[in-house]
Amino acid sequence: MTTLLFTIVIVTQYYNVYSYMTINKYDLSDCVLNPKLVQEIASYKNITKTIMNEVVNNGDTFYNEYANFIDKFGARPAGSVVLEEAIDHMINLTRSNGLETVTTEDVMSPHWVRGSETATMIKPRIKPIAILGLGSSVSTPSGGITAEVIVMRNFNELNETIESNVKGKIVVFDAHYTSYGETVAYRVEGATKAAEKGAVASLIRSVTPFSLYTTHTGSQEYGSNVTKIPTAAITHEDADLLRRLQDRGATIVMSINMTSTLDYKTSRNTLIDLKGCEDREKLVIVSGHIDSWDVGQGAMDDGGGMFISWYVPVIIHKLKLKPRRTLRAILWTSEEPGLVGAIEYLNRHMNELNNINFIMESDEGTFEPLGLDVSGSQNAVCIVAEVLKLFKPIDKLKVSSTVGSDITIFNSKGVPGASLLNKNERYFWYHHSNADTMDVQNKNDVVQCAAFLAAFSYVISDLTEDIPRY
Amino acid sequence: MTTLLFTIVIVTQYYNVYSYMTINKYDLSDCVLNPKLVQEIASYKNITKTIMNEVVNNGDTFYNEYANFIDKFGARPAGSVVLEEAIDHMINLTRSNGLETVTTEDVMSPHWVRGSETATMIKPRIKPIAILGLGSSVSTPSGGITAEVIVMRNFNELNETIESNVKGKIVVFDAHYTSYGETVAYRVEGATKAAEKGAVASLIRSVTPFSLYTTHTGSQEYGSNVTKIPTAAITHEDADLLRRLQDRGATIVMSINMTSTLDYKTSRNTLIDLKGCEDREKLVIVSGHIDSWDVGQGAMDDGGGMFISWYVPVIIHKLKLKPRRTLRAILWTSEEPGLVGAIEYLNRHMNELNNINFIMESDEGTFEPLGLDVSGSQNAVCIVAEVLKLFKPIDKLKVSSTVGSDITIFNSKGVPGASLLNKNERYFWYHHSNADTMDVQNKNDVVQCAAFLAAFSYVISDLTEDIPRY
Repeated sequence: MTTLLFTIVIVTQYYNVYSYMTINKYDLSDCVLNPKLVQEIASYKNITKTIMNEVVNNGDTFYNEYANFIDKFGARPAGSVVLEEAIDHMINLTRSNGLETVTTEDVMSPHWVRGSETATMIKPRIKPIAILGLGSSVSTPSGGITAEVIVMRNFNELNETIESNVKGKIVVFDAHYTSYGETVAYRVEGATKAAEKGAVASLIRSVTPFSLYTTHTGSQEYGSNVTKIPTAAITHEDADLLRRLQDRGATIVMSINMTSTLDYKTSRNTLIDLKGCEDREKLVIVSGHIDSWDVGQGAMDDGGGMFISWYVPVIIHKLKLKPRRTLRAILWTSEEPGLVGAIEYLNRHMNELNNINFIMESDEGTFEPLGLDVSGSQNAVCIVAEVLKLFKPIDKLKVSSTVGSDITIFNSKGVPGASLLNKNERYFWYHHSNADTMDVQNKNDVVQCAAFLAAFSYVISDLTEDIPRY
Repeated sequence: MTTLLFTIVIVTQYYNVYSYMTINKYDLSDCVLNPKLVQEIASYKNITKTIMNEVVNNGDTFYNEYANFIDKFGARPAGSVVLEEAIDHMINLTRSNGLETVTTEDVMSPHWVRGSETATMIKPRIKPIAILGLGSSVSTPSGGITAEVIVMRNFNELNETIESNVKGKIVVFDAHYTSYGETVAYRVEGATKAAEKGAVASLIRSVTPFSLYTTHTGSQEYGSNVTKIPTAAITHEDADLLRRLQDRGATIVMSINMTSTLDYKTSRNTLIDLKGCEDREKLVIVSGHIDSWDVGQGAMDDGGGMFISWYVPVIIHKLKLKPRRTLRAILWTSEEPGLVGAIEYLNRHMNELNNINFIMESDEGTFEPLGLDVSGSQNAVCIVAEVLKLFKPIDKLKVSSTVGSDITIFNSKGVPGASLLNKNERYFWYHHSNADTMDVQNKNDVVQCAAFLAAFSYVISDLTEDIPRY
């Protein structure tokens, strides 16, 4: 997943708007659902079991298709040829599963390609420093950059440092991980803030709670009217080393060489529809993104989420079930550079927004499923809570102003939605690093996520009542 | 720490000789210590408190010296110039702490230098494979090796595979981690076993219970009369990928390029004596190794163990305490290539072996101290158990046929000894990898290890009774 969500979260947190609320604290007493609706929801018990059993019974095949996809294509960076091949693969896989209603919509996507990247501490001693360029970083000038290093704990410290102490230097942001939402600010804005003070390059402590000398990339954004300086992530271990050396009064000099290219390519969002039998124009969307960073294999972020979302219309179709509304799986393209595919979809379908009854996403791991993080009106939350009762113990409910990553922009427009809650405590250990591989995944957990998502989506898409908006 | 210990452990395990015994199960009922000795041991309670308090009170200075040492020298490979500079640093640090009785003894050490190392899977798709050459590995022929890959789960599978299926191929040993003692066999013997079947290179799944796409090096030994083939570690993640591809019937081709050089250099064991006031010729030795692998910073393996061992005579001297026997700290050189420094010391001092009353080592981490792993006679174990009562809750006792790494060769000659037990469940996450840095360490834990080791060593070196042999 990328940053936009978290930027929004940060902003709303600052204004005390953003909050997590459990249904117990927030809603339970206020939920007054039509008894007929409650009864209707309860009547789905058997069908949810049937759907979940079907997914579990096909678990080996499903998981092997997923592993085969990841192993066949590996990393799928936005704008790359391999991403387009991976999209073709998913189109073909959909058709070979008997679903012909698969279409694509073009998306103009940034195509940032990492070249060679090396860094060496030259003083006080020579030591190689592992670096991993941040997405959209510019190259260093030919011959690289050799400059003194200044280590900054946070933006406040940078603000309080006089410009002459930063000018011409490499700024290292040594911000310790608190939460992704908070700490990612250094990745997104670090280069811009450092450049505003005249720095020649910006390095960040990798945004992760745990490191085995691991570097983590991710998107960053150059502010307008500032010099674009090269920017990369370093490991916790080296950030701590640099901090200690600085604290001891050492002059630290580092040499950095980075190359990259940036252009634009056409990519595609992939839409897989299981047409509704009554309200075809009404949509329940379930989604994940098919692109990944260029490091690792994009197995967790978001191969797993994409695959379980793709499987929803496939398995419902296999069961010959026909929900009232159209069930649409979307495989977003180019999420990582900044929700590019989702933004394009939103713009293209802006006047059909009212047709989206509910929008779902899985982009925070497919570990053991726990429940849903929901964005929507009180009544929407109440209905989701009632449906979740069918899935006990997968019935944890969180309520947030926006949820997920790609779908936040829909939530912001008033579309209710949910993202998959799962036991993802270690998600950021692997996120945007070489460690995002199939080894992160547990077959049973992924299959359980797929089973839950398919059955929940079916119920929502088939209910007689729409999910109410604000 | 290196492998020799574990090779011995494996061997003895095979013959059911090796065992762990707690004092409760094994000894308590049989321990009949002279009541005067028990009383004498109990009388050390206050002095152990004094020593431990002194270490804790100097904890900041001590830990900063340690961190400064690691940050100043970083990795200290056997035979390297930086290792000799690090040894000089420790000699000077000893003298600046008022201890002049520091000597060195020359050791002829292998000096293996890693050059460039790259590997790429070429079929069924192109993917870079992270590799880390194993110590003493030969280079690939100029131009590298490009060959088909065969993945083997274990030595049995290799034995059962006909030679023509291995000949000319790159063997990947995909042995899953059970314990270091068991799994390290693939690192030590993998190249030899693969070469015996005509393989052109040997890769092992890194010997660790947990990976973030992490490679782990370590020593390996070419058998006599086999072709020396290049050998390296790959990550769990890539081993699993190769396994899945093979299981799906794919032909896997990999290209490997590795360079290295091997020669011999003179290094030094460093001996720091706090001369005994009564039985000067009698020795209580406390030790750790100062060399490290070339990856990471050798902070854990064995910077921490070396530093707390070094501190024993230093802090006892600072307190103006004079134990009966000579307290000798040894900073072993060249442990990693195969206990080279310790073997040289043993050979050089063979006829003084009876003078070693007790030998200690810390080479398995300096996490929270728990107690000791002891090798020795029943009576020796009983005395250690009695002394450990002074250190509750740091009083856990294990009994093993040999303990530690460097000191195993002394145990095997009948010298009783102990190695530090500590809460090192994650030790092998970092071991022999780039993740062996100061980030592994917790100041309070390291200081507590130092305090315990110093106080325990003092008691053992001052007791009126020798530690009895078999």
